[in-house]
Amino acid sequence: MSDTLLVVNCGSSSLKLAVFSRDMQRQAQILAERLGTSDSSASIERKGQRQTLQLPDNSDHQQALTAVIEHLEQEAILEGAPLVIGHRVVHGGETFREATRIDQHVADAIHRCGELAPLHNPVNLNGIRAMQSLYPDTPQIAVFDTAFHQTLPDHAYLYALPRRCYQDWGVRRYGFHGTSHAYILRELAKKLDKPRSNVSLISAHLGNGCSVAAIENGQSRDTSMGLTPLEGLVMGTRSGDVDPGLFDFLQRKGLSQDSISRMLNQESGLLGLSGKTNDMRSLVQAADSGNRAAQEAIDVFCFRLARYIGAMMASLSHLDGLVFTGGIGENSPRVRAKTVRHLRLLGFEVDDAKNENHGQDNNGSINAAGHGIYVIPTDEEGMIAREALEAIDRSSD
Amino acid sequence: MSDTLLVVNCGSSSLKLAVFSRDMQRQAQILAERLGTSDSSASIERKGQRQTLQLPDNSDHQQALTAVIEHLEQEAILEGAPLVIGHRVVHGGETFREATRIDQHVADAIHRCGELAPLHNPVNLNGIRAMQSLYPDTPQIAVFDTAFHQTLPDHAYLYALPRRCYQDWGVRRYGFHGTSHAYILRELAKKLDKPRSNVSLISAHLGNGCSVAAIENGQSRDTSMGLTPLEGLVMGTRSGDVDPGLFDFLQRKGLSQDSISRMLNQESGLLGLSGKTNDMRSLVQAADSGNRAAQEAIDVFCFRLARYIGAMMASLSHLDGLVFTGGIGENSPRVRAKTVRHLRLLGFEVDDAKNENHGQDNNGSINAAGHGIYVIPTDEEGMIAREALEAIDRSSD
Repeated sequence: MSDTLLVVNCGSSSLKLAVFSRDMQRQAQILAERLGTSDSSASIERKGQRQTLQLPDNSDHQQALTAVIEHLEQEAILEGAPLVIGHRVVHGGETFREATRIDQHVADAIHRCGELAPLHNPVNLNGIRAMQSLYPDTPQIAVFDTAFHQTLPDHAYLYALPRRCYQDWGVRRYGFHGTSHAYILRELAKKLDKPRSNVSLISAHLGNGCSVAAIENGQSRDTSMGLTPLEGLVMGTRSGDVDPGLFDFLQRKGLSQDSISRMLNQESGLLGLSGKTNDMRSLVQAADSGNRAAQEAIDVFCFRLARYIGAMMASLSHLDGLVFTGGIGENSPRVRAKTVRHLRLLGFEVDDAKNENHGQDNNGSINAAGHGIYVIPTDEEGMIAREALEAIDRSSD
Repeated sequence: MSDTLLVVNCGSSSLKLAVFSRDMQRQAQILAERLGTSDSSASIERKGQRQTLQLPDNSDHQQALTAVIEHLEQEAILEGAPLVIGHRVVHGGETFREATRIDQHVADAIHRCGELAPLHNPVNLNGIRAMQSLYPDTPQIAVFDTAFHQTLPDHAYLYALPRRCYQDWGVRRYGFHGTSHAYILRELAKKLDKPRSNVSLISAHLGNGCSVAAIENGQSRDTSMGLTPLEGLVMGTRSGDVDPGLFDFLQRKGLSQDSISRMLNQESGLLGLSGKTNDMRSLVQAADSGNRAAQEAIDVFCFRLARYIGAMMASLSHLDGLVFTGGIGENSPRVRAKTVRHLRLLGFEVDDAKNENHGQDNNGSINAAGHGIYVIPTDEEGMIAREALEAIDRSSD
């Protein structure tokens, strides 16, 4: 058995792997795309070098994983079975409050949670099964996007729906991006040199998907995503919150539920507002050259984020900091400045110079006065590796 | 022509009238219910006395109005044609930014806005036509629930949807309860002895329907209701915000769009959570006798309101006060205390004694420290009368 940790993240037509050494150094990063087509390939990054591996036509996740693992072993990136394999699993329902070693019982429970995430959990399970057959003796750990938010109080997770929706069908706020929010908590606690259980923050994860979380004394108390990852903030192609009366309205206009759903998930958000792109960097450029729709997309994105930061404060009794993370959160001074400009009455103020260089000369801190504001790069894969290791320690207790 | 002002508010199967003298004293109040059934009647309140008027079987709005007006004239509550008739109209779309004298052109525009409020505007128009035929020479004024919110900036009224939704179909945040929020602004300005254009507040209208508005220097800048009155806060029977992914989920469970829509509008909110009632007073009693579902209904109601108060602060640069109004806002110390308890980090604190007696010995003020908090009874009908009067002054300029 090698000393390597492997992290597997299966998306609908993609596959990400990350290889870590026992001391949590990232050894390699693999991204396979367009699975199920005749044009699928994997890019492998290692020590600043990038290779491309052609995958068999119409590979499914199992075939792609097999081909990639074989390649990693040939290149001696993997030497023998990994120490542990951590799988990102999107939905853990109310069953899973922490990373859990996968046995048949756990796999069955992940399958049942698939009702809540029909696009994600089945694919995550495919990845799990593939790795189990490749490495039958290696501990496989499921790390859930929802687990960190299982501490939400009743008043934050209940929707104002008839009771049967929750009791019979599990309709409630679950929240997602838990791995990232938990990582940000850990990093902020380190920065402040405080125990996590004393740290309170608002974590704003802004990537393709976006969510905020209110973390009070180390526990998630509220978050913007809900039953599904569609609720809350404006995202790359997702609408976030809309009026629930929109569905009736659009059906009167002749749209089917399927086309509304496709629109809200794939044609909305920054892409829908700008009519152009879901890439924030391109939007900022377009706005600077006078494109009004691009400017409005940025404006709505930042305002809605500011609104949610205000909302999250209703769950906190003190605040150690507001943290920006994820691709947009880490890299867009424009978004951070514009968002915080709405929050003056709430005691937030950005220092322009520190913000421009992402707080890099300042230990991540970018506030001028008032509440702390930080830029902290997230590391979901590193966190999954860490949680997987902790889970085997727990399971061998 | 008499010196009387008449306010007409037509609901789907109900009808409210209020009679005011020229100096804005309320003379009488009429509520007709169960229109269209064999059991419809009108209750007439005047100087503390209540009368009941049986209405013809299966009366529509026109027949009911005719019968009620005839009775008011017999009783000399109305003497001749009123000076002006103000009609509550739910949806004014982007066409109407203020109360407007009704001519054929305006009636057509109200009809067109009916696409956005198919349950309300057609009924409002029925009331307008009925009063026009009863009093053809009296100025009839439409006072819109949406008009006050037409100052919302782009970033607050745009949903993150494809552009065509707004451009082709008018999908945007309109906001409602505008008459009440505008009245609260006027009253707070009086209390503070400041011009309205300098007053900034958060107005929480909590009745059967509930909404908050952020009013900055006299103008509405954000509000919780959106395209329809279903978005935002938890209400008596309405869900307020849900995950937009809920619709897919429930349809997979076999629910039709119609039954989902009925559930969200009529079976959710306080009623759905408690499984019992949408009446806040009964819920508080039930909670105090240990009913857990009733307690949770109150908890969710207050938390979601606190979340939105935090969100509204993203639209304000200063704050003169948070105002509670509407049946629940004016009468429930429990709701006010519980809501504000979530808002300590935001600088709000209730004084328990002042809160218990609704600020009545204290000019409506109930805060202990920090930001101002007020209880101010709303008066939508009085406001409609006032706006109707102002509108005929404007239209005769």
